[in-house]
Amino acid sequence: MQTITGTPADPAALTPAAARAAFRAGLSTPTSGWCAGATQANLIAVPREYAYDVLLFTQRNAQACPVIDVTDPGDPRTSLAEGADLRTDIPAYRVYENGELVTETTDASEYWRGDLVAFLLGCSFTFEKGLLDAGVPVRHLTAGANVPMYRTNRPCRPAGRIEGPLVVSMRAIPAAQVAAAVQVTSRFPTMHGAPVHVGDPVGLGIADLMRPDYGDKPIIEDGDVPVFWACGVTPQAAAVAAKLPFAISHAPGQMFITDVADASWSL
Amino acid sequence: MQTITGTPADPAALTPAAARAAFRAGLSTPTSGWCAGATQANLIAVPREYAYDVLLFTQRNAQACPVIDVTDPGDPRTSLAEGADLRTDIPAYRVYENGELVTETTDASEYWRGDLVAFLLGCSFTFEKGLLDAGVPVRHLTAGANVPMYRTNRPCRPAGRIEGPLVVSMRAIPAAQVAAAVQVTSRFPTMHGAPVHVGDPVGLGIADLMRPDYGDKPIIEDGDVPVFWACGVTPQAAAVAAKLPFAISHAPGQMFITDVADASWSL
Repeated sequence: MQTITGTPADPAALTPAAARAAFRAGLSTPTSGWCAGATQANLIAVPREYAYDVLLFTQRNAQACPVIDVTDPGDPRTSLAEGADLRTDIPAYRVYENGELVTETTDASEYWRGDLVAFLLGCSFTFEKGLLDAGVPVRHLTAGANVPMYRTNRPCRPAGRIEGPLVVSMRAIPAAQVAAAVQVTSRFPTMHGAPVHVGDPVGLGIADLMRPDYGDKPIIEDGDVPVFWACGVTPQAAAVAAKLPFAISHAPGQMFITDVADASWSL
Repeated sequence: MQTITGTPADPAALTPAAARAAFRAGLSTPTSGWCAGATQANLIAVPREYAYDVLLFTQRNAQACPVIDVTDPGDPRTSLAEGADLRTDIPAYRVYENGELVTETTDASEYWRGDLVAFLLGCSFTFEKGLLDAGVPVRHLTAGANVPMYRTNRPCRPAGRIEGPLVVSMRAIPAAQVAAAVQVTSRFPTMHGAPVHVGDPVGLGIADLMRPDYGDKPIIEDGDVPVFWACGVTPQAAAVAAKLPFAISHAPGQMFITDVADASWSL
């Protein structure tokens, strides 16, 4: 296979395997729009000693934490991508010690440990494609920006040493299309599903919509309603807050691209 | 609260709390039809040492294993039922050692251990109510029989020391109502969801439909099609097959009755 060393002309047309090979060869880039129709995933890898707490946290807060695979300890393979190596096939990684970011790297091989359990979690890219297909505008995508995300006043249900608030993403939806946005995302029950809140952000303890905790400032047009979905940042934020002695995650926006079709998660 | 010592005249009208109190007082009875509209759950409690394998097995085989709560080690309470005690509030329990049934009891208090983690799993009672409401016949219910269940030739994805085949339940559905059965159960994605197989049982390695591995012989009428759903017996069968040194489950058909509405699982 030819090695891609720069960003390809048409990343949407690449196969997931070709994209992973490019990342393995050292390419680092945000993956939004890459490999159209393929499910992208968040990574959080923790020592086996903490894996039960993390897995239980995802079960107890399932809407925010759509686990799509969990590896065996030390095994860098996943059932979601033929021939993939989780240590190298993500564009960029972050390595944490005691909840502190210690390095960012394009190759996690030297940091990977024999006791690491990797959790792959789905991301909202999957349902955003469904929204676009249904004619619902996704304003941050059109603008080439990141989705705005907020810590809420709703505590997650703790699990062992892991706890933290629910994090939500927000999309400003025209009032006449809020129902369609609910219908479309309801068809992805294992990819965050329907919104957790529609309307006034104060109900979630969000004081200023224009100052998100993660991502970019929102783009809101006249007649839009703020609509909030449970966000996959929730478990990673909680894992970092728990100051686990060691963890590896993907770098924000630089996701693992699986072989699984986005459409396979839809009812 | 008045203690119920025999089967009440109208168990469907009881509140879940009243039913649990009756079971706590010693009543042992199948719970099908009790507390109409309340979610009933399977129990499997295992030592903390095995909880990660069981939880991972449920994640890897989620359609068969709809986990609705996991307790903290030794804690007999659940978030699904106010004031309930999992050691006493199920009509009957089975206690296993090394995969062998050692006793059946109406009160598990003396067997409960400080390291036990209890898994509560949803059951098909929830979507069967949806089928009946939609006018789809559920033949075993009408006949007062148990649903027929079968071990298939499809292996589950193993998790640590836990492995086993997918177990399915079968309902014979009139050909004109198979689509409705798919639609209704699709609306319960966290309660087994849509069927895994429609039609010829040979495709699942089932040699003789009239000889189920669990439950009662099926009732099939002219023009019916056999429709198969992933079954909640799967994780319990795998846990027993793994010969865990210790486990407690409910007795078949004698379920834990939660405070959660069946309708809350429906899209």
